[in-house]
Amino acid sequence: MAWFQKEIHLEARSRGFHLVTREITQQIPDLSKIKVGIAHIFIMHTSASLTINENADPDVRVDMESHFSKFVPERAPYYQHTLEGDDDMPAHIKSSLLGSSLSIPVRQGRFYMGTWQGIYLCEHRNHGGGRKLIITINGEKE
Amino acid sequence: MAWFQKEIHLEARSRGFHLVTREITQQIPDLSKIKVGIAHIFIMHTSASLTINENADPDVRVDMESHFSKFVPERAPYYQHTLEGDDDMPAHIKSSLLGSSLSIPVRQGRFYMGTWQGIYLCEHRNHGGGRKLIITINGEKE
Amino acid sequence: MAWFQKEIHLEARSRGFHLVTREITQQIPDLSKIKVGIAHIFIMHTSASLTINENADPDVRVDMESHFSKFVPERAPYYQHTLEGDDDMPAHIKSSLLGSSLSIPVRQGRFYMGTWQGIYLCEHRNHGGGRKLIITINGEKE
Repeated sequence: MAWFQKEIHLEARSRGFHLVTREITQQIPDLSKIKVGIAHIFIMHTSASLTINENADPDVRVDMESHFSKFVPERAPYYQHTLEGDDDMPAHIKSSLLGSSLSIPVRQGRFYMGTWQGIYLCEHRNHGGGRKLIITINGEKE
Repeated sequence: MAWFQKEIHLEARSRGFHLVTREITQQIPDLSKIKVGIAHIFIMHTSASLTINENADPDVRVDMESHFSKFVPERAPYYQHTLEGDDDMPAHIKSSLLGSSLSIPVRQGRFYMGTWQGIYLCEHRNHGGGRKLIITINGEKE
Repeated sequence: MAWFQKEIHLEARSRGFHLVTREITQQIPDLSKIKVGIAHIFIMHTSASLTINENADPDVRVDMESHFSKFVPERAPYYQHTLEGDDDMPAHIKSSLLGSSLSIPVRQGRFYMGTWQGIYLCEHRNHGGGRKLIITINGEKE
């Protein structure tokens, strides 16, 4: 039985949805030691989020950004939290809609996901900067 | 301490929200061996999702489908990912809104949920076919 | 290695989004014994939910309630589940949008979250009453 926990950093990205599976796995070599378990990925921010979606056609990521920015509008007349910029309150709402963590099954040292699944960083700010994640892996060692 | 991990199959269902608590528990007899722990249920697809909601009145499932299909419309003018059918891009968005996994407390060999809670398979495609889940259970044995 | 599991109670609150980090941590003294692990927080209801968002400006919570009540309207013409009140079916939808559980990293006896992150109880009913949570903590002891 083993626990690994590590804070990692994702580089700054533009507003939108970004495939980051590889950027994450490259920073957690301990994943390869786990035979069966769960990897938990947690983002330490309230204006960016994490989700799992299609890892193939990049148009999916473009359409996700279009949809969420339409249905969580900027400058809604009812917003009171406006001092941090037009993109800030929508970013908080999107963060709760999409969620701040993922739990992914681990098997034979790898994420045990479907063929078409990848991890998205959902950057909801125009200039969010780098993002910090806490990775916690628990499982049986090889 | 024990880890169980198993890939299970849910039969094909029509587009909509479906109560699948029993179909899942019937396929994981090892659940009964866990005194205290967590069961993690992960769907290996990006056009169907999992959620917990009311297990009683079937109208709740009908209304969920009505709501999500209205607020995540087909043929939105901004969609670029359109080659896989009108229901495909909305399915990806709904999948991220609802989420691809659940973590449920386990106690005395059973899911430790509220009286009115059940597990929904949210099938977002018109013809999604059967769906694969990975069940990972971790806990203390009886 | 240790497992703690406990049912706790949150006091009744008005409809809206409420910061409850302290009300939760005060009821789980065993958290302080965990060096590294995961805390899982599960709400046993289908008309209230849990999310992580900004713990500072209370206007964020007000705007969350405004947004979700606009985009998940009461008395939508397509609702069939109407006998339990105008706020009931929207509460079920919001509950699935936001989610019924959180998994939070634990480090040195505390939730390992970002500086600005807190736990929200999202109360979707007008008169929801007190709410029950199951807290499950798994990790290595100090």
